[in-house]
Amino acid sequence: MTHTIVASHSREVIIGFDQPFCVIGERINPTGRKKLAAEMVEGNFSTVESDALAQVAAGATILDVNAGVTAVDPNTTEPPLLVRTIEIVQGLVDVPISIDSSVTSAIEAGLRVAKGRPLVNSVTGEPEKLEAILPLIKKYDVPVVAISNDETGISEDPDVRFAVAKKIVEHAADYGIKPHDIVVDPLVMPIGAMGTAGQQVFRLVRRLRDELGVNTTCGLSNISFGLPHRHGINAAFIPMVIASGMTSAIMNPCRPAEMEAVHGANVLNGTDENCANWISIYRDHTPAAAGQPASAVSAGGAKGGRRGGRSARRGVAA
Amino acid sequence: MTHTIVASHSREVIIGFDQPFCVIGERINPTGRKKLAAEMVEGNFSTVESDALAQVAAGATILDVNAGVTAVDPNTTEPPLLVRTIEIVQGLVDVPISIDSSVTSAIEAGLRVAKGRPLVNSVTGEPEKLEAILPLIKKYDVPVVAISNDETGISEDPDVRFAVAKKIVEHAADYGIKPHDIVVDPLVMPIGAMGTAGQQVFRLVRRLRDELGVNTTCGLSNISFGLPHRHGINAAFIPMVIASGMTSAIMNPCRPAEMEAVHGANVLNGTDENCANWISIYRDHTPAAAGQPASAVSAGGAKGGRRGGRSARRGVAA
Repeated sequence: MTHTIVASHSREVIIGFDQPFCVIGERINPTGRKKLAAEMVEGNFSTVESDALAQVAAGATILDVNAGVTAVDPNTTEPPLLVRTIEIVQGLVDVPISIDSSVTSAIEAGLRVAKGRPLVNSVTGEPEKLEAILPLIKKYDVPVVAISNDETGISEDPDVRFAVAKKIVEHAADYGIKPHDIVVDPLVMPIGAMGTAGQQVFRLVRRLRDELGVNTTCGLSNISFGLPHRHGINAAFIPMVIASGMTSAIMNPCRPAEMEAVHGANVLNGTDENCANWISIYRDHTPAAAGQPASAVSAGGAKGGRRGGRSARRGVAA
Repeated sequence: MTHTIVASHSREVIIGFDQPFCVIGERINPTGRKKLAAEMVEGNFSTVESDALAQVAAGATILDVNAGVTAVDPNTTEPPLLVRTIEIVQGLVDVPISIDSSVTSAIEAGLRVAKGRPLVNSVTGEPEKLEAILPLIKKYDVPVVAISNDETGISEDPDVRFAVAKKIVEHAADYGIKPHDIVVDPLVMPIGAMGTAGQQVFRLVRRLRDELGVNTTCGLSNISFGLPHRHGINAAFIPMVIASGMTSAIMNPCRPAEMEAVHGANVLNGTDENCANWISIYRDHTPAAAGQPASAVSAGGAKGGRRGGRSARRGVAA
């Protein structure tokens, strides 16, 4: 059984087929968040702190930390800022960290200060990336997210993306890095732009699991880019990728619809023993609080008369 | 490609792997609905009528019709009541009917009056059921729901339930009934009572599709029986069974959470071309209307700054 171990100084998280879905909180990332970027440049980490606390409270089991505030001279500016951000986050919460940067020197600086066994996000199939990142993964004995694109870009052909992932796993083996320390991101395309994006990723995740034996992750909300009511698409996508074998995602844990889908899929995937987590969260759930109009509840028969009836008629024990 | 054709006098519904998930409305059923049963006995069909209209408006593509108001002398009482109920429903809405009864004479009476090509719900693997129902299926050239239990009851072993389904398909072949006219219900157990119930049904549905080439259905809400916030479990279960290959379900279409899961899973399964149905339903969706507290929306960044950022960073075209 493939187990990817990620740890803080005090807490271990296992990513695996037999484990609850691993939610990697995406919020501490100034990309596309101008206000956060400006704050971080000024040395103001109040949003970083509140995002760290809110995400852990919402159920994130790992926090992604990115400090890419500028495209200008990131080799100089990003390493110290990433170090400071990691130190602030791990001083505040005890979940493991995912060190997220496209700048190799920033990743190495982060690895020097991150406690426990952080996840590195990420390496790609580009030769210079493989040569820069894989030695760090080996040296610090940490797991890494492997994104299935290379120097030719992102292929729309899922077989090519599988081949890129396989190439990364093979290169990692040359460095002595085991498949269980590689978490493949098969790349999720927006379904609004490519109608086969869902079926592609379901098939890819299954192949990555069956043929390469690796854990998988994705930037979850890419799937709904450009569509109305994105949270509805995200919340349907989560159970489908979990049913296909995906074991983690980089996502926003502060969205109740998405987290409900994660918790529900864990129950149905057999990774929430005795439904204990579901019951602890939703024991006192009232439909109105979750946003169902109260009228719909009575119309729909929330207490399940018909359902019990069907169960009874077919003799299903409850 | 397996296509099960169900039709009213004016409308054809195809159940198939390449089709939108078929929602069979479950509400017109007095089992466990004492008030409805009492009304139907009195000849009052106002609830039947309102349930028919509401379910079609909510997106049901087939309506299940059951008139099992009493366990006393159903052979006498049920056929005329089922006939009357079917006539009322098909006089009011134009979707196909599923004739739902455990009384053979009621099913035959229903078949005589149902227009188009109704679905028969159901046959089991019990020898007397096979001998009673399959000749009717052949005679009227209609599709049938095959429930995977037999005279020994419902097995907890999914391999036994698969074997029962296979036996029904083989018996049907002896009557000249093709697999595409059999919609197997693999039987969904309550996940709260059996922690493997989800994984069982996902694997069973995949096998039924790959090995027998049949469409599948289930009494959907059985999965959440006994748990708090059942709609959350149902809404996670729907995308997972669809990802596993299930093509229809007998369910309550008047539940917004469940129907949102169906519409979202259709988008992701590639059966909602250009996301046209999703966009038409959710174009003007506001998170508050769907029950997300407004505060969570701003906290979570509903407009997806970070998400767009991640897409941009990884170069996914949108």
